[in-house]
Amino acid sequence: MAAISFQVEHQCETARAGTLTTPHGIVETPIFMPVGTQATVKGLTPEMVAGVGASIILGNTYHLALRPGAERVASFGGLHQFMHWGGSILTDSGGFQVYSLAHQRKITDHGATFRSHIDGRLLELTPESATQIQEQLGSDIAMCLDECPPAQAAGDVMERAVNRSILWAGRCKAAHTRPDQAQFGIVQGGLDIDLRRKCAEPLVDLDFPGYALGGFSVGEAPEQMHAALPASAALLPIGKPRYLMGVGRPLDLLVGVAAGIDMFDCVLPTRNGRNAHALTHFGVVKLRNARHAADPGPLDAACGCYTCTNFSRGYLHHLFAASEMLGPTLVSLHNIAYYLDLMRNARAAIIAGRYPDYVANCVARWAEKA
Amino acid sequence: MAAISFQVEHQCETARAGTLTTPHGIVETPIFMPVGTQATVKGLTPEMVAGVGASIILGNTYHLALRPGAERVASFGGLHQFMHWGGSILTDSGGFQVYSLAHQRKITDHGATFRSHIDGRLLELTPESATQIQEQLGSDIAMCLDECPPAQAAGDVMERAVNRSILWAGRCKAAHTRPDQAQFGIVQGGLDIDLRRKCAEPLVDLDFPGYALGGFSVGEAPEQMHAALPASAALLPIGKPRYLMGVGRPLDLLVGVAAGIDMFDCVLPTRNGRNAHALTHFGVVKLRNARHAADPGPLDAACGCYTCTNFSRGYLHHLFAASEMLGPTLVSLHNIAYYLDLMRNARAAIIAGRYPDYVANCVARWAEKA
Repeated sequence: MAAISFQVEHQCETARAGTLTTPHGIVETPIFMPVGTQATVKGLTPEMVAGVGASIILGNTYHLALRPGAERVASFGGLHQFMHWGGSILTDSGGFQVYSLAHQRKITDHGATFRSHIDGRLLELTPESATQIQEQLGSDIAMCLDECPPAQAAGDVMERAVNRSILWAGRCKAAHTRPDQAQFGIVQGGLDIDLRRKCAEPLVDLDFPGYALGGFSVGEAPEQMHAALPASAALLPIGKPRYLMGVGRPLDLLVGVAAGIDMFDCVLPTRNGRNAHALTHFGVVKLRNARHAADPGPLDAACGCYTCTNFSRGYLHHLFAASEMLGPTLVSLHNIAYYLDLMRNARAAIIAGRYPDYVANCVARWAEKA
Repeated sequence: MAAISFQVEHQCETARAGTLTTPHGIVETPIFMPVGTQATVKGLTPEMVAGVGASIILGNTYHLALRPGAERVASFGGLHQFMHWGGSILTDSGGFQVYSLAHQRKITDHGATFRSHIDGRLLELTPESATQIQEQLGSDIAMCLDECPPAQAAGDVMERAVNRSILWAGRCKAAHTRPDQAQFGIVQGGLDIDLRRKCAEPLVDLDFPGYALGGFSVGEAPEQMHAALPASAALLPIGKPRYLMGVGRPLDLLVGVAAGIDMFDCVLPTRNGRNAHALTHFGVVKLRNARHAADPGPLDAACGCYTCTNFSRGYLHHLFAASEMLGPTLVSLHNIAYYLDLMRNARAAIIAGRYPDYVANCVARWAEKA
C-alpha cells in the first residue's frame, strides 16, 4: 500500500485538477503549500493556517536538522505532533539551504559537508542522511537530495549537478524505508530542456510516486522560467503529482498550473506579509504607504479571509507604522489566503474548462489599482 | 442614564465580587485588563484575547494620540471598531507615559508640555485635552489626568502632585461630555495614607462613577505597596469600582483583591510572554532554559488555554531558540489566560467565602517546581 495516491480528475489543455491523498488527508490540486521553515509558518498558529484552507505545508529539513534536530523532533512523535499540524507535510531534502545558507560547503558525489549558519558546527548531508532525517521528521512527502546550481552556472556545472542528482536519487530511494512516507524525485537541468530530459528519464525509471522540478526561480528571468516550464513539466509522468519547487509570484503559479504543475511552495506570501507587502486580487498593496493611513476599506475587497473581513487598511497601516507584531501576522495570513484562493479558483476553472479565461481575468485584475 | 453600572454582589472580608456593566458588555470582577497599548494586545488577535476570557482591555491614550492620532481613530468609528474589539475598553489619561516616555516635559498646573518620543514633536496634554482625546477614542471608561511621581519623590513633590491631581480631576469632570463613557478619578499620595486621604476626599466629593489608585508600583518595594493597599482602598466608595493602575505580579493582584480592589492592568503578562517568561499555576517558567528542550509536557498542566492544550514546553523552547514570532504569541496568550484564570478563581473563592484559603493555595502552588 503506497503512502500517497494521486488522481488527475480534470484537464484543461495541459492544466490539471487532481486529488492527492496522504496519510494526513486529502489535498485538492493545484495547491500552494505555505512554508513552515522552522516548524512554524511564521507568525501564524496552525489553526490560522488551516483556517484559510491550507491542507499541506512545507517543512525545511536543513533548518529542522540543525535546530531542534531530527531526533528531537522524532522524540516528540514527529513534526506533525511537534508543531501541532494535523494536515499533510512535505519536507525538502535540505540541499537547497546547504547551497544558499551554510558556510564552507564542499560538495562531492558522496554528499555535502558544510558549517551550520547558526553555530558553525561541521555537518554532513548525504542522500542517505537526508532520507533518514526526513523519516525522523515523519513528513508525508520527502524529497530526494539533489544538487541545485544557480541559473547562471556554466554548462559543465549544470551537467555535473544533473548527474549527481540522478546518482543521489537512486541512493535516496535505496535508503528509504518508511512505508507511510512518499519520496519524490527532483529533476534539475536549468533552462536546458535536453539536460532536463537527461535528468528526467532515469528518474522516471526509478518510479518515484511524484516528481519535482528543481532549479527554477534560482536567478533566471521569470520569462525564461515561464518559457521552459511546459516542456519541463511534460517530461514528468502524467499520472503522478508534479511539484515546482520554491515558486513563486502569483503569475508564476498560474503559468505553472498551465504547464501542468500540481504543487507549489514559496516563502513569498509570508516573507512579503511580514514586510507589509500584500498580494491581492487587485495586485500588490504596500501597506506602509501613507495613502492607506485613513482608508477604512479592506485590504482586498474580493477576499474573505480573517484579515480582510475584520480589519481596515488604515488599521493595518497603523500596525506596521507602530512595529506591532499583529501587522505581519494579519498580512501573512491574508497573503496565504490569497495564494490558496488563487489555486482553488484555478482548480474550479480547470474543472469548468475555462482555465485560460481565468488566467486572463486574474492578470487583468492585477492591473487595476489596488 | 449612566454609562456604566456596578454592583458588589459578594464580599469575603474586604475582597469583593461584583459586576460592572459598560456599553460593551458585562465585566465580572475582580478582573484583569490586558494592555493593548497601540490598539493591539501585542502579538494576539482580538479573537485570541476574547478567547481566553478577556472582557475589558486597556488602551494607552499617550501612544494612540501620538500614533495614529485620536482624530484618526475617531474617523474609523472609535477605538473598538478601529482595532476590532467588541468588548469593553478602558483608556488611561496619557499622563503616566508623559512622565515615563516623553522628552523635555514641563508640568505646570495648566498641564504638561513634552516632546513625542517618536518624532520629537512638541505636544501638550491638559486635563481638557486628555478628556477630549479619550472621548475621541470612545473608550467605555476614561481616566482623569493626574500627576504620578515616582515612589522616592520628596514629600513636597508628592503633596504638589496630589493637589494638582485634585485640581485636574475637577477640570476633567467639567470637560467631560460623552454620555456613553464613564470617567474615573485617580487617587495619588504614594505610601502616605494621610496624603491619600487628602486626595481621596475631594475626589469622592466629585462623585465619579469609579476610582483608581495611582502611584503604586512606581519604584516602591512590593511589600510597601501591599501594606498600603488596604487603607488606600478603604478610602474609596464601597459601591463603586476600584482600579489599581499598572499592577502587577500575580501575588500583587491577589493582595489587591484582598484589599478590595476590583480591576487591574499590567503589561507584565504580555511583556514577559514575549521574552519566554511564563507565569503559571506553579510559578515562573523560563522557556529559554535548556531543561525544557526535550519536555513533551504542557507549559502549565493546570491551564486549559490554547497554548497549554496544544503545544509542549519543548516546542515553545524551540520557537524562542529559533526567534519565531509564534513563541511570543503563544506565551503572551498563556500569560493572559493565567491572569484571567487567577481572577476568575478569585471571584469564585470570594463568592464561596474562602478567599484567604484560595490565596494560600495559590502561593503554595507557586512554590512548587514548575
